[in-house]
Amino acid sequence: MNNYYRKDKWLIIEDGFHPEMNRESESIFSLGNGYMGQRANFEEQYSGDSLQGTYVAGVYYPDKTRVGWWKNGYPEYFAKVLNTPNWIGIDLSVNGKEVNLSSAKIISFSRILNMKEGYLERSFKIHVSRSKTIEINSRRFISMAETDLGLIKYSVKSVDFEGRLDFGVYLNADVRNEDTNFGKKFWKEVRREVKAGSGYLITKTLKTDFHVATGMNFIFEKDNETIPVTPDIVSREKYISNTFTVSIKPGEECTLYKYVSVLSSLNSPKELLADDLKQRLKEAVAKGYNKLFQDHVEAWENIWSTSDVVIEGDIAAQQAIRFNIFHLNQTYTGKDERLNIGPKGFTGEKYGGCTYWDTEAFGLPFFLKTADQKVGRNLLLYRYKHLEKSVANAEKLGFKNGAALYPMVTMNGEECHNEWEITFEEIHRNGAIAFAVFNYIRHTGDKEYMSDYGLEVLIGISRFWSQRTTYSQNLKKYVILGVTGPNEYENNVNNNWYTNTLAVWTLSYCLQNIEILKVENSGKLKALFEKTNFNYESETSRWKMLISEMYFPFDPKNNIFLQQDGFLDKELMPANEIPADEKPINQHWSWDRILRSCFIKQADVIQGLYFFEDKFDTETIRRNFDFYEPMTVHESSLSACIHSIIASRIGRIEKAYELYLRTARLDLDDYNSEVSDGLHITSMAGTWLAIVEGFGGMRIQDNAIRLNPFIPIKWQSYSFNSRFRGVLFKVKVTKTDVIVNNLSEDALQLIIWGKNYQLEGSENLVVKLQMDFPA
Amino acid sequence: MNNYYRKDKWLIIEDGFHPEMNRESESIFSLGNGYMGQRANFEEQYSGDSLQGTYVAGVYYPDKTRVGWWKNGYPEYFAKVLNTPNWIGIDLSVNGKEVNLSSAKIISFSRILNMKEGYLERSFKIHVSRSKTIEINSRRFISMAETDLGLIKYSVKSVDFEGRLDFGVYLNADVRNEDTNFGKKFWKEVRREVKAGSGYLITKTLKTDFHVATGMNFIFEKDNETIPVTPDIVSREKYISNTFTVSIKPGEECTLYKYVSVLSSLNSPKELLADDLKQRLKEAVAKGYNKLFQDHVEAWENIWSTSDVVIEGDIAAQQAIRFNIFHLNQTYTGKDERLNIGPKGFTGEKYGGCTYWDTEAFGLPFFLKTADQKVGRNLLLYRYKHLEKSVANAEKLGFKNGAALYPMVTMNGEECHNEWEITFEEIHRNGAIAFAVFNYIRHTGDKEYMSDYGLEVLIGISRFWSQRTTYSQNLKKYVILGVTGPNEYENNVNNNWYTNTLAVWTLSYCLQNIEILKVENSGKLKALFEKTNFNYESETSRWKMLISEMYFPFDPKNNIFLQQDGFLDKELMPANEIPADEKPINQHWSWDRILRSCFIKQADVIQGLYFFEDKFDTETIRRNFDFYEPMTVHESSLSACIHSIIASRIGRIEKAYELYLRTARLDLDDYNSEVSDGLHITSMAGTWLAIVEGFGGMRIQDNAIRLNPFIPIKWQSYSFNSRFRGVLFKVKVTKTDVIVNNLSEDALQLIIWGKNYQLEGSENLVVKLQMDFPA
Repeated sequence: MNNYYRKDKWLIIEDGFHPEMNRESESIFSLGNGYMGQRANFEEQYSGDSLQGTYVAGVYYPDKTRVGWWKNGYPEYFAKVLNTPNWIGIDLSVNGKEVNLSSAKIISFSRILNMKEGYLERSFKIHVSRSKTIEINSRRFISMAETDLGLIKYSVKSVDFEGRLDFGVYLNADVRNEDTNFGKKFWKEVRREVKAGSGYLITKTLKTDFHVATGMNFIFEKDNETIPVTPDIVSREKYISNTFTVSIKPGEECTLYKYVSVLSSLNSPKELLADDLKQRLKEAVAKGYNKLFQDHVEAWENIWSTSDVVIEGDIAAQQAIRFNIFHLNQTYTGKDERLNIGPKGFTGEKYGGCTYWDTEAFGLPFFLKTADQKVGRNLLLYRYKHLEKSVANAEKLGFKNGAALYPMVTMNGEECHNEWEITFEEIHRNGAIAFAVFNYIRHTGDKEYMSDYGLEVLIGISRFWSQRTTYSQNLKKYVILGVTGPNEYENNVNNNWYTNTLAVWTLSYCLQNIEILKVENSGKLKALFEKTNFNYESETSRWKMLISEMYFPFDPKNNIFLQQDGFLDKELMPANEIPADEKPINQHWSWDRILRSCFIKQADVIQGLYFFEDKFDTETIRRNFDFYEPMTVHESSLSACIHSIIASRIGRIEKAYELYLRTARLDLDDYNSEVSDGLHITSMAGTWLAIVEGFGGMRIQDNAIRLNPFIPIKWQSYSFNSRFRGVLFKVKVTKTDVIVNNLSEDALQLIIWGKNYQLEGSENLVVKLQMDFPA
Repeated sequence: MNNYYRKDKWLIIEDGFHPEMNRESESIFSLGNGYMGQRANFEEQYSGDSLQGTYVAGVYYPDKTRVGWWKNGYPEYFAKVLNTPNWIGIDLSVNGKEVNLSSAKIISFSRILNMKEGYLERSFKIHVSRSKTIEINSRRFISMAETDLGLIKYSVKSVDFEGRLDFGVYLNADVRNEDTNFGKKFWKEVRREVKAGSGYLITKTLKTDFHVATGMNFIFEKDNETIPVTPDIVSREKYISNTFTVSIKPGEECTLYKYVSVLSSLNSPKELLADDLKQRLKEAVAKGYNKLFQDHVEAWENIWSTSDVVIEGDIAAQQAIRFNIFHLNQTYTGKDERLNIGPKGFTGEKYGGCTYWDTEAFGLPFFLKTADQKVGRNLLLYRYKHLEKSVANAEKLGFKNGAALYPMVTMNGEECHNEWEITFEEIHRNGAIAFAVFNYIRHTGDKEYMSDYGLEVLIGISRFWSQRTTYSQNLKKYVILGVTGPNEYENNVNNNWYTNTLAVWTLSYCLQNIEILKVENSGKLKALFEKTNFNYESETSRWKMLISEMYFPFDPKNNIFLQQDGFLDKELMPANEIPADEKPINQHWSWDRILRSCFIKQADVIQGLYFFEDKFDTETIRRNFDFYEPMTVHESSLSACIHSIIASRIGRIEKAYELYLRTARLDLDDYNSEVSDGLHITSMAGTWLAIVEGFGGMRIQDNAIRLNPFIPIKWQSYSFNSRFRGVLFKVKVTKTDVIVNNLSEDALQLIIWGKNYQLEGSENLVVKLQMDFPA
C-alpha cells in the first residue's frame, strides 16, 4: 500500500516525477473505450523504464505454448492481446536536444486522470539550458463517442527560451509484446503511406491475419493560430513520421493536435481499410478537436448518470469507486459480442487479455446493474457463440454427445490454459457460465433469451456435469472427483462442495426450463432437441437421479458444508497466525505447503453461499463464514469483495467494511505490488458490488429490488445508480434515511427490510434507516 | 511387440536393413562400459533417420528449464547428459562415390551384438556398380578393461571390384542434443591437433566447463599387412580428419583399425589432458587391437561369472535376460561414486541421463546381488555426497534444521524436475534412499557404513518426515497430506499408505541405529549429533510419537491397506475393461480422466508389501494383490517386475510368469514403441529380480540366503549366480531339484523352504524341488 496518488473526488493526481513509479502510473492512468486502449506512455521519447502498451480489442496472436511437461489435451497456444502500433508518438527537441524525461532537468511534473471527462493530462516544466525553461502540456483522450478516434493536444510553451523546436509526429508499428514465449514480433507491414500532415500504416498479425490500419493527421498552431508547416517525410518499414522545425520565443505557445483513427479488419473489409481510414480522419479533422472532445465528455456523462456511486465523508473511497467504475467502462462497453473483459483490460499484457470466469462472476453483475441490457446480453452471446468449441474442448478430454466444457482462459472459444489442475479440473467455471444465464434473465426479464440461446448452452453444460459425475459404491452417492474449486490453493480434490452444488443447480435449472419451454413453445423445444440430438427420456432421468443422489461433503460437528472431502484432516488455524514476512504465501511458500495448508485463496464455499443465498438461512451462512473466512488469505483480487458482501449479509458490518477496504483501493494503493503489470479490472466490479449488494443489501427477490442497507460509520452518505428490468433508479443511504428515486417512467417494485413498495415513474421514497439485520 | 530380432542365447541379431527400424536398433545395439557409451550409429555417412549418440558418464549440461507456469521452488534447469564428440566416424567412398546405406544398393546386411564378448559387429554387402560388389565388416567395442578406450576394426573386401577407395578417418565435436530446450549447442573447442595417422580434439561444455579430450590413432592394413598411408589433413573448428586413397582388387581386403581414447576433466587435470591422451593412445597402439580385445573379453567373462542367468528350454527368455544383464553392466560398473544409473543409460537422451529413485529401488538390489559390495557402496555414497544439497533443497520448500529432501531427478544433487505434483509431492523417493541404506547393509554386512555415512542420511530424511507430517485433530492421528505415491496416476493425495509406511519405517530404523551406535560407539554418535546439531530429547520423542500415532488408511470391509484416503470413492473396475484402442491410457486419456479413474500405473501398496514383506503374512499380501493388481495398467516399465515377484511370493505362478513376460523382452520386442528413444535400463534390473526373487524366491532372512524356488512350466531349468556378504554362489533350479553351488571359500548359510543348511566353501547342495508354497 503506497498512498502515492493525491486524493480527489474525480481526479487521480500524480505530483512530481518518480521514474521508479512510472510503470505503475502507466497502468493507473490508462485510457480506453472498449474498442481500444493504451497505457499512459509518454508522447515524447522516454528512455527510462516503461511498458509500452497500445491495444485493439479482439486483435490477438496465438503464441505457441511453452510447457515443460505435456499432457494429453493441453492447448497448443496461449492467445495474447497484442501490442498494436503505437500512435501517440511525438518527438520533441529543443535546440537540437531531445526532450526525454529520463534525462531532463525537471522543475515540475504532474499527471492527472480526469475520470469525469475521461482524459489524461500531463504537464511538466523543464530547464532547456542552465537558465531557460519551457512548459509542456499534453492532453489525450480516446473517444467514447467515436471509438476509432484518439486525440492528442500537445502544447509547448516557452517561459523564457528563444530558439528552435523540432517536432516529429509519427506512427510506429515496430512493437513487440514483453511476454512473448519465443521473443517473436507478431506484426507484418501490409501498406504504408505518408505525406505532409498525414499518413497511415496498415499492418497484419502473423497467423491470425488481423489487419489493423492506424492513421494520423495533425494540425499545428502557434498562439492559437494554425500555422502551415512543411515537414520532412520519414518512411521506413513499419514506421512513418513528419518532422519539422519551428522557432519559439518567450511567452509563445506551440500546439500540435494529433488526430488518430484506428480501424481493423474485425470491423472493415481488409481492402477498404485504407480508404475508410482516410475518410475517418477527414471527418475527424473537419469536426475539430474541441467538438470531438465535447462529444466524448457527453458520452462519459451518460455513463456516469447510470453507474456513478457518490460517497460523502470519505474522499479516498469516493476516488476509488469512481476509479473502478471508470476503468470498467473503459474496458468493456458491450457494443460487440465478439469482445469480452480481460482481467487487465487495456492496461497491460498479463493474462493475455483473455476471458476468464471473472466475466460471469464479477463483470456481468456489474454491467447488468449499470448498463443497458444489451451489454449483458452480448457478454452471454460471446459464450453462446463459443458453444461449439466448448463441445470440441470437452471431446478432447473424452466427453461425448454434445457435453460442453467452456475453457478456463480463452480468446476465441479455444482453451489457452495449460496447467492440468486448472485446465482439466477447475471445471466450476462451466457452472458460472450457466449461472450467468439465470443471472441475466432475473436482472433483465429477457425470457426469450432462454429459448433462443440460453437453453442450448445449459444443455451442453448439463451434459458435461452428467458425464463428469461418477457413482461411488462406497458412499452410495454420486461424486465429482478430481476438481479444483475457486480456491486454487487446493488442487485435484474430491467433491468440492461449491462445484457439486453448481452442478446440481445447473441440472435443475436446465430441467426446469425444458419443462417451461415444453409448455410455452413445444415446437421450439422440439427443434432444440433435434439440434442437440437430445434424448429426453434417458438424459433427463439421469439428471434427476444425479440431483437427488449427489453427494455433498458436510461436517455435522460444526454444522457446515465442507469445502471438499478430507478438509477437516488438515491442521486448521487462522490466517492471522501466518508470519507477516511470509505473506502473501503464494510468493513465499512452495506449492505443496500451500496445498496441504488449510489456507484459502478466495471464496469457495462462500462463493456458493453468495450465488445461492436464497437457499440458506442466515445462521447457516454465518456458521460457514465464521468457519472459513478466518482461514482465508484473500490472495486473489476477487476474494475480499465476495466476503465483504456476505459479511454485510450476516450483519458483520465492521468485517464487511474492513474487507471492502482491501479491494476498493487495491490498484490505487498497489496493495500487492503488481500494478506495474496492469490493473485488476474484473475485481473492480467486485468493489462496486461490495457497496451495492453489500452495504446496500441490494438483491433481486420476487421480481423486485430488495434493499437491506446500512452505512459504514466513517461515511456521511452514499448513493448509487442502478437498473432493473429497464428501470433506472438511484439509492441514497444517509445516516438516517434510505432514499430511492425512480429515474424512469416505469414503476419499480421494491422490498426494503421486508416491506413492499411500489415506486411509480419519477417517484421518490424515503424510509428511515434501520441498522439491525433481519435473520 | 515386434519380434524383430533373431533369437539366440548370446547374440542379438538383426537380419537385413530396415531403415524404419534404425533408431530402434541404434538403441538395442548400444555399447558402453560405465565410463562412456554410445548408440549403434554407423561409422560411415548415413543420411537416413538416426539419433546420433555418444556419451561420457558424468558430463552434463544444465539446460535452462522451460515451464509454462512457475511455482516457488521450481529448479532453474534440467541437467542433461551430453552428446559428446563423435569418434566412430569413418568416411568411405568407392571410386569417388560415398558409401551411404541410405542410398546404397544393399545385397545383405546384418548387425550383431555379441553379449558374451561385448562387441557390435556389422556386416553388409553392396553393389558399387551394376555388377560389382564389395563387403564391409565393422567390429566395435568399448573396452571393459581400459575404460577410456574405444576400438573399431573396419574392413572393406572387394568381391569383384577393382578401383579406388577413399577413406576419411575423423573426429567430430560439432554435435548437439536432440532435446535441447532452446536449440543451443553445448560445446566449445579448446584445442585441436591433427597429423598423419592421429589427432585429437579438446572441447569444453558451456556453463559446467567439463573438458573432454577425444583422440584417435589409426593403422591401415591390406590383406593383413600394415600399409603406410600419407593422408591429407583436414582441420577445422571442432573437426579433424585424415583422408587417403587406396586401390583395391577383387579378393583383396583393406582393414582400418581406429584406436580412440576419451579422457575428461572428471579424471584428469585440464592442463594435462592433451599429454595424457597422447600417452594413452601410444600405449593402446603398442598393445594392439587383438590384445586389447582379449583383455576386454576377459573382463566380460568376469562379469558373466557372477551375474549370468542361464535358462534352458526358452531361448527368447535366455536371450532377454542376458540382454538385460549386459546393458546393466554396460551402464554402471560402480567404479566412480560420482556416477549413477540413468534410466536410459548410454542409449539415448531421454530423462537426461539423470538419477531417479529407480536406482535405489531397482538398480541397487541387482548390483548388491551380482557385483562386488563396493559397487553398491558407491551408489550409496553418491547420495551421501548429495546430502548437503538435499538439505538445501528441503530448505527451498520451507523445511528447517537439516531436514533433507532428495531430488526426484538429479545429476549433481540439485533438483531438476518441475511438475509440482512430482517435484514437491512425490516424496516417497526420500524413503527409497533410506531403505537403500538398510538394503545395502543387509546384503553386505558392512555395518561400518551406518556409522560412517548411513546414519547421517537417515537423520536428514527422518527430519524431513517429521516436519512433513501434520496432526489431524479430526482423525486424532498424524497424517501426511498432499503427496504423490509411486502410482503417478494419482496426484496430490492424502495419506498414501506406501509413503506413510516408508516414513514410519525410516523413523524407526533411524532411531534403532541411533540406539545401536550409542552402545557401540558413543563417541562417534556424539560427533554425529554435533555435526547434525541433533537434539536427542526433542527429536527422538517426536519421532516416537509419530511412529505410534501415524494414520494408515485401511479398508476394513476388504481388509486391505488403502492406497490413499478416498480411494474407495472411485468407480472401481478391472483394467481389462479398458477398450484396447484406449491403451496405454496415458497416450489416450486426458490427465483428469486418468486421475479420477481407479487405474494404477505401477506398484504402490504392492511396492510397500515388497519392501516390507516380512511384516505381512501371506494372506494379507494376497488380499492386497488381488484387490490392486487387477486395476493396475502397468504403464511404467517398473511395474510388472514387482508385481511378478509378489505374484511368485503368493504362489500365483501363472500370473508371475505372465507379468515376467511383460518386462523381460520390453525393449527387445519394443512393447511400448519407444525403444527408438533408448532402453529401459533400470527396469532391466527388475527383470533379473523377477527371476531371482520371484521364481527363485531368494531373500535375505536371519542373516542367511532364503530360497523358495519354483520353475515356470515352459522352462527346463534356470540358474543364476549371486553374492551374499562376500560369498559367490550359484543356484540352479530344474524340474526336479534345486542345486546350490558355493563358488567361494567361505561358508554360506541357506534356508530352503524353511529348512536351514550350511554350505561350506566350494560345497554343493541338492534339494528336491517342492512346488507348493509355504504360507
